[in-house]
Amino acid sequence: MSAAELNSEFEALQSQYQALAERNLALDLTRGKPGTEQVALSDALDGILEGDYTAANGTDVRNYGGIDGLAEAKALFSTVLGTPDNEIVIGGNSSLTLMYTVVDFALSVGLRGPESAWGNSDEVKFLCPVPGYDRHFAICEHLGIEMIPVPMDENGPLMDEVEKRVSADPAIKGIWCVPRFSNPTGCVYSDDTIERLAKLGNIAGDDFIVMYDNAYAVHTINAAAPALANLREYCVKHGTESSVFQFGSTSKVTFAGAGVAFMSSSAANLSAFKEHLGFQSIGPDKVNQLRHVKLLQSAAGIAAHMEKHAELLRPRFAAVLATLESELGGTGMGEWLSPEGGYFISFNTRPGLAREVVKLAADIGVALTPAGATYPYGNDPEDSNIRLAPSYPSLEDVQATAEAFVLCVKLASIRQALR
Amino acid sequence: MSAAELNSEFEALQSQYQALAERNLALDLTRGKPGTEQVALSDALDGILEGDYTAANGTDVRNYGGIDGLAEAKALFSTVLGTPDNEIVIGGNSSLTLMYTVVDFALSVGLRGPESAWGNSDEVKFLCPVPGYDRHFAICEHLGIEMIPVPMDENGPLMDEVEKRVSADPAIKGIWCVPRFSNPTGCVYSDDTIERLAKLGNIAGDDFIVMYDNAYAVHTINAAAPALANLREYCVKHGTESSVFQFGSTSKVTFAGAGVAFMSSSAANLSAFKEHLGFQSIGPDKVNQLRHVKLLQSAAGIAAHMEKHAELLRPRFAAVLATLESELGGTGMGEWLSPEGGYFISFNTRPGLAREVVKLAADIGVALTPAGATYPYGNDPEDSNIRLAPSYPSLEDVQATAEAFVLCVKLASIRQALR
Repeated sequence: MSAAELNSEFEALQSQYQALAERNLALDLTRGKPGTEQVALSDALDGILEGDYTAANGTDVRNYGGIDGLAEAKALFSTVLGTPDNEIVIGGNSSLTLMYTVVDFALSVGLRGPESAWGNSDEVKFLCPVPGYDRHFAICEHLGIEMIPVPMDENGPLMDEVEKRVSADPAIKGIWCVPRFSNPTGCVYSDDTIERLAKLGNIAGDDFIVMYDNAYAVHTINAAAPALANLREYCVKHGTESSVFQFGSTSKVTFAGAGVAFMSSSAANLSAFKEHLGFQSIGPDKVNQLRHVKLLQSAAGIAAHMEKHAELLRPRFAAVLATLESELGGTGMGEWLSPEGGYFISFNTRPGLAREVVKLAADIGVALTPAGATYPYGNDPEDSNIRLAPSYPSLEDVQATAEAFVLCVKLASIRQALR
Repeated sequence: MSAAELNSEFEALQSQYQALAERNLALDLTRGKPGTEQVALSDALDGILEGDYTAANGTDVRNYGGIDGLAEAKALFSTVLGTPDNEIVIGGNSSLTLMYTVVDFALSVGLRGPESAWGNSDEVKFLCPVPGYDRHFAICEHLGIEMIPVPMDENGPLMDEVEKRVSADPAIKGIWCVPRFSNPTGCVYSDDTIERLAKLGNIAGDDFIVMYDNAYAVHTINAAAPALANLREYCVKHGTESSVFQFGSTSKVTFAGAGVAFMSSSAANLSAFKEHLGFQSIGPDKVNQLRHVKLLQSAAGIAAHMEKHAELLRPRFAAVLATLESELGGTGMGEWLSPEGGYFISFNTRPGLAREVVKLAADIGVALTPAGATYPYGNDPEDSNIRLAPSYPSLEDVQATAEAFVLCVKLASIRQALR
C-alpha cells in the first residue's frame, strides 16, 4: 500500500474502532475456562453415588485416609497418562497444587533425601519452552527458580537447545512441558521430542525432572488430532522413570473447580512424595474420586464424554480461525496455528505490537490474556505473542471478540507501518 | 499390698492376659476418627444440590475461581470460629493443609514480606503445649522448626511459662493450641488463658503467631460443656489480630475425608496468604462448599447436627470412663480427665509405663496411639501419657478395648511394683 492508501485505511479502521467503542462491549477471552454448557455435561456428578459411599475394596470414602487415592480412581486416570495404575497418585481438585508441591518438595526437602534438595545450591534454574503457561512460570518465580526460555516449534521445544543447555549447566533442574495441545500453541510434541525428553534423565544429574503437564491429554477438538507418544515407555527404554513427573486432571473434563487431579512418576519418587504429602493432609477427597469413577467409568467413557466437549468447542474455535483467515490471511499482519485440541489459539502479531493490540482491545471492553503472559517474567522479547481462549464465551460473543481482535491487530499494524 | 499379694495378683492378671491373647482381638483406638454412624449423618450431602450449582451471588460453583471461598460458606463457618465473615478463607478438605501452608508461608516466603520470613534466621522455634497433637508436631519437625514443650493444666498451657519463654527468646515464632476439648486432654482453655494468648502478640515480635486449631469448636459431648471465650475479641482489645491464625473444619461434622476446612486471621494476613495460595491453586472445591451450606445452613443447624454426633459418642466415652473408674479408680495406677467434648481421653500411667502398656496391648491385638505421640519428637519424658480415641469402634469393641486396656495398665503397674 502507498502512504495515502495506508492513511485512508487507518482512518477507516479508526472509525470502525470508534463504532465498536460505543457499543460498550464486555467480552473476555483471557482464560482457558470451560463454558457453562461444558461443565453442565457433568451435572450428574452430584447425587451419582445414590447413597453408596463404598469403594470397590470396601473403603468407606466418607472417612479419613487414603493419601494416594482409591484403586478404581488410579485405574481410571492411569489410562489418561498412559502409566501403570501402581505409579499414580490421586490428588485434590487441582493439578497445579500437585505441581507446586512437587517443585517445592524437590527444592526444600529433596526428591532423594536432604542431600538432593535443589535449595542446597545457590542457583536453581528451569527451562521454559516458550510461549508457555503463565502459572508454571509463576511457580518458579514465587519459589526463586531462575527461568531460561527455550523456543518451540510445531514438534515441541527445540531439543538440540534443551540438550545443550542441560549438558552445560548443572543448575538446570527441570523443564516445563505441556506435551499435547500445548498451552498456548496447540502443538503436539513429536515422538522424537518425547523420546529425547525421556533421555534427558541420562544427560542431566540425578535430580533433574521433566514437569510433564499433560493437561489436555484427552482434549481433542478434531478427531484427526495426532496422538501423543507414551513418555513412560521411552523412560522405561532408557531407564529414566525417576526423571519424569506427569500431571493431569479432570478440570476440563468434568467440573473446572471441583474435579480430580492426578500425577505419575516412578515408584521411588511417589513413595518419597507421599511421605511428604502426609505432613500436609490425611488424604484427598475420596467421595469426589468415587463420583468421578461412576461418571466416567473407563477410558472409552472419558473419550465419549470428551467428544461432547469437542462439539461445543469446535464452532468457537472455527469462528476465531475463520475470522483470522478471512481478515488477516495473506496480509502479513499476523501468524497463528490451527490447533487440533486444547483450549487456545496462539497468535503472533508483527514484532512490537502485542501489548498495543491488547491495550486497544481492553480500551473497547475486550479482555485478552496480558501480552507477555506466555513468557517467563512476562517478558516476550518480540512483544508479539497473544493467547486467545475462546471456550468460555457464547458463540456470538466469541465471534464479536474475534472481529474486535482483528480490527485491533489491523489498527496497530497499520499505525506501525505509518510510523 | 504385700509382695506375696502382688505376686498372686500378678499371676491372676497374667492368666487373664493370656485368655485375652487367645481371643485374637483386632481392636483399634488409635485415631480420632468418626464412626460409620457418624459420617452417615451427612449422607444427604451427595445429591443435595438437586442440579442447582449456583451460589447466592450467581457464581457457577462448577467452574474455576474463588480462591477464598463462597460468601455463604464464609458466613456459615465464621460462626464456628467466632470471627467476622470478611476475615475467613475457605480451603479444601483439610485444615491440616491450611496449617501446613501457613507455617510454610511464614517460614519460606514471609507473612509480611521477604524480610519477615522466619527462615532468614538460623533458629526457628515453636512452643508446643503438651500433651498435644502429633500432626502439629510433625509439621514443625518436617520443616525444621525446633519444638519446646510447655506443660498444660485444666486451663490450657501454663501461660506464665509461655510468656516468660516468648519474652526471652525471639527465635520463638509460634505456639500450637487446640483451645476447646484439647487434643488429647479435653481441657477447655480458660478466659484468662485466651486473653493472655491474645496478648502474646504484644510481647513477641511482629512475626510471632498463635496457631489456634479450633478443631473441636462445636464438638460438645455433654450439653454442660464450658464455652470457649472469643479469641478474636481479645485480639481486637489488645490490637493483635495479626498475631493469630484460627483453623477449623467439618471433618468431624460431616465427612472426615470430604469436608470443608477454613481459617481466619487479620485482613492483612489473609491478603498476603491468599496471594501465596494463588500460586498453588485456582481455588478450592466450591461445589462441596455449597453442599455444606445446604446441609448445615446456620449455626443452629450445626448445633443440631452436632447433637446427633454427641448421641453416638456419649455411650462410647461413658464405657471407657466407667471402666477406668471401676477398675483403676483409687488404685493410683492411672490418672485421667472426663472430657466434655472432643475425641479423646488422655490417660497417664505411673511414670515409665506408657510404652510398656501400649506394647502389652499391641501384643494381644489392641492398637493404641503410640506412647510418646502426644509429645514433640515422640519424647514423653515421663513415659506416661496414652491417648485413647473411642469414637470409631462399635460400642461393644470400645468396651472390650477398655477392659483390655485396664488389664494392661494393671499388669504393667504391678510388674513395676515387683521390680
